[in-house]
Amino acid sequence: MDALRRPAISDAEETLDPTDWSDVRALAHRVVDDSIDYLRDIRKRPVWQEMPAEVESVFEELLPHAPTPLNEVYQQISDNLMPYPMGNIHPRFWSWYMGSSNVTGALADFLAAIQGSNLGGGNHAAALMDSQVVNWCKEMMGFSPSASGTLVSGGSMANLIALTVARNVKAGVDIREDGVDAVEKPLRFYASDQVHSCHRKALEALGLGNKALRRIPTDAKLRIDIASLRASISEDRAAGFQPACLIATAGTVNSGAIDDLEALANLASDEGLWFHVDGCIGALLAIAPANAYRVSGIARADSVALDPHKWLHAPFEVGCVLFRDASAHRGAFAVSQEYLESTPRGLASAEWLYEYGLQTTRGFRALKVWMALWEHGVAKFGRLIDQNIAQARYLTGLIEQKPILELVAPTSINIVCFRYSPDGIEDAARKALNIEIMLRLQEEGIAALSDTTIHGEHCLRVAINNHRTRREDLDILVQEALRLGALLTP
Amino acid sequence: MDALRRPAISDAEETLDPTDWSDVRALAHRVVDDSIDYLRDIRKRPVWQEMPAEVESVFEELLPHAPTPLNEVYQQISDNLMPYPMGNIHPRFWSWYMGSSNVTGALADFLAAIQGSNLGGGNHAAALMDSQVVNWCKEMMGFSPSASGTLVSGGSMANLIALTVARNVKAGVDIREDGVDAVEKPLRFYASDQVHSCHRKALEALGLGNKALRRIPTDAKLRIDIASLRASISEDRAAGFQPACLIATAGTVNSGAIDDLEALANLASDEGLWFHVDGCIGALLAIAPANAYRVSGIARADSVALDPHKWLHAPFEVGCVLFRDASAHRGAFAVSQEYLESTPRGLASAEWLYEYGLQTTRGFRALKVWMALWEHGVAKFGRLIDQNIAQARYLTGLIEQKPILELVAPTSINIVCFRYSPDGIEDAARKALNIEIMLRLQEEGIAALSDTTIHGEHCLRVAINNHRTRREDLDILVQEALRLGALLTP
Ligand SMILES: Cc1ncc(COP(=O)(O)O)c(C=O)c1O
Ligand SMILES: Cc1ncc(COP(=O)(O)O)c(C=O)c1O
Repeated sequence: MDALRRPAISDAEETLDPTDWSDVRALAHRVVDDSIDYLRDIRKRPVWQEMPAEVESVFEELLPHAPTPLNEVYQQISDNLMPYPMGNIHPRFWSWYMGSSNVTGALADFLAAIQGSNLGGGNHAAALMDSQVVNWCKEMMGFSPSASGTLVSGGSMANLIALTVARNVKAGVDIREDGVDAVEKPLRFYASDQVHSCHRKALEALGLGNKALRRIPTDAKLRIDIASLRASISEDRAAGFQPACLIATAGTVNSGAIDDLEALANLASDEGLWFHVDGCIGALLAIAPANAYRVSGIARADSVALDPHKWLHAPFEVGCVLFRDASAHRGAFAVSQEYLESTPRGLASAEWLYEYGLQTTRGFRALKVWMALWEHGVAKFGRLIDQNIAQARYLTGLIEQKPILELVAPTSINIVCFRYSPDGIEDAARKALNIEIMLRLQEEGIAALSDTTIHGEHCLRVAINNHRTRREDLDILVQEALRLGALLTP
Repeated sequence: MDALRRPAISDAEETLDPTDWSDVRALAHRVVDDSIDYLRDIRKRPVWQEMPAEVESVFEELLPHAPTPLNEVYQQISDNLMPYPMGNIHPRFWSWYMGSSNVTGALADFLAAIQGSNLGGGNHAAALMDSQVVNWCKEMMGFSPSASGTLVSGGSMANLIALTVARNVKAGVDIREDGVDAVEKPLRFYASDQVHSCHRKALEALGLGNKALRRIPTDAKLRIDIASLRASISEDRAAGFQPACLIATAGTVNSGAIDDLEALANLASDEGLWFHVDGCIGALLAIAPANAYRVSGIARADSVALDPHKWLHAPFEVGCVLFRDASAHRGAFAVSQEYLESTPRGLASAEWLYEYGLQTTRGFRALKVWMALWEHGVAKFGRLIDQNIAQARYLTGLIEQKPILELVAPTSINIVCFRYSPDGIEDAARKALNIEIMLRLQEEGIAALSDTTIHGEHCLRVAINNHRTRREDLDILVQEALRLGALLTP
């Protein structure tokens, strides 16, 4: 090459790659060994522990300007990050609602970052795998192969994407161009009073407002009350609103209740509503032999949100949304851009996956789902779901045997709501006592629960979405809750 | 424990964990070795290659029901996925706009999945690190420590979150409750005609409609024309609209043009507009010694979107959005939920990070940014940005030396727009010829470019956001483009 054109400065070009790969290779092997030990020994560690002040202060340091050897950086991680997790990979973590990850998924996230592909689209292997995993989700839900779908950051985004399509389809005007203003009669969406808050946030974001989400009362089993729902719909029609979308919940976050999907599918069809199922918790019941009947009717939905980072235990993040009508899905998001035109051949000779949602760049979420499904087979994931439900029933049995423990909601699937309830205690004192039991269980590293309020009643909540939980862990929970309850009762 | 209460079935409990960790440990070591080799040898591989039909068919297989040994699953990855990447980690990938990942980030993604924490919030180390990385982003942008921010899936979501806050603040009504309908005068947002399509998608999602986004013409340097902008704003006021938000682009995706941020900050302040900067490409110029001047004024923005998975080369996904007014930020997204109440102590004794955006579950995106910034120091990232810009200037020089190559837009930062342009060729023929050159460069594995249209002129586009690119790679590009151009000219 022309020497004049190649200035000496070229030699000074820097890169993030090491000049010698052997150091980083050695470190990566150390990371692997430590990580395998970390998972193997999880039962020996507390589910959660408070960070000492000197650990907290590490995370107050300002932006580093100078380099630090990677070994030292990793030592910081090892000393200050790994011992203080949220705890959700621990067998006795049952707080809120999330999966517990798995080692194959972690390897997949590593490989995805090494290969580095952008799932905005293009003609490459990761893009094919992304579509394949969406196809597998359709199979799991009983959707037809001609349905559409996309992998997203989680259940909240899956629901937002679904509600966007529902809004656009039902608006009756070109809402993408003209906005909500152009809609003749204000749209109304319906869900139970147990609906996850992400729906409220979605309707706010979509410009319909929280007031567009009508919360319908629930029955004693915390399922949407269908008579009330019918009444609200006709009330709204009479008042000049346009009933647009029915959101069924298959597994509420408070108690795991599953709305009657068949009945709601019928109602949605009678009323001409978009039928969305928030199945972030429960849609995957469809693969669990003993419990699939609970979500029968789910394949009749116009859209379903499901969440592989919950009951498939994929490391965060991966959610999925499916649509029966592929063109409605794409029609809500596709735009053409000059710099992203497709070509007949080469890298751009494929569909753009970013035209199915709100991201442009998309990470390679599919690999962790793909690898774990190949490794274990979907049948095992189904059994693990049944197992969590059997465990919840086991825990419910333990609670029922102890008069001082009170079940606060019927156990439907894998969420158990109960409280420690000594005779004659006042409501406020009982709430304070139960919160203290919950905090001590966390602080002593025994178990992580959360608390909630159901139909006005405060309770502790055990959400068993965990492939490491064993029945003996639930024995420990009951035993320790009883111990702490007795200890703390005034 | 009570034997009666511990049924024998307990022994049959399954988990995703292996019974013996040594197999997965051995496999993980193999994955590490292969991955390090993969990165080390990247220059020896083609930037992109077409998948053979038998590889494509692997990604058509249906949902696996039975288990497969993890070794075999990995063999599939190794044979069918790793050889067919998008190509963006290759030194001669300059298509569209994305970063090129790095090995430390891949280790971080692995560790994040092993530790498994959910960044929805809580009192744990990953949550502190998440906030720390947001603080580092503030430092990089010159924002005050009291500003607010959040890590998101990428630039598109960063912009969507920012525009949501802008909409809510400027609506003048309780838009979260009452929706867009309640806004008195329709809101108008302004950006240049070079604005990224994610803004259109954001305004559509937000219920304002594409028509609420006014595209202002750009000058010869592809920067927003300020006189036209002023005129549009007063025209809109006169027509009964409410000018609400000015979106400046610091680095357009077509050509890298940077709007005049100081002038726009003044104008936004004069007109009472929310001032948002889409800095997905260019915000990080603020850390690059030779080029920081180009984004002077960015710290005056009400909100900034920046994208660590571009010029910090973090593996996908990580974007960031910052807000000067922390309460406006939280005010757009916070909701209270019974099952997510904070507690005075324990796991829930911290802020909920999910109250700053649209996700509930949030992955641990911070670790890959944190580790790479500690390892290399921010100063090196700044030099790498300067290096890409110097390389783009170098390429511009090469093009200017060859009369048959024509520069189609002025090179501002790291994007070079040019075409192969034989004397007297018709427009359509030239476009076809250039597309063919682009496709041959991809198909022969030499380089990945994309094409675009700027002010009506079709061209090839080289976006050098790549820490592996060397000047010699640009020499190869020019040489091969000339070879192919000559070969293909009719
Ligand atoms: C019923 C339901 N819907 C939606 C979500 C939100 O899912 P994600 O946390 O993945 O955003 C949850 C989370 O627990 C949920 O339980
Ligand atoms: C100017 C600009 N804004 C926004 C985006 C979207 O960023 P992301 O792909 O991370 O969603 C891009 C992507 O290239 C961009 O160039």
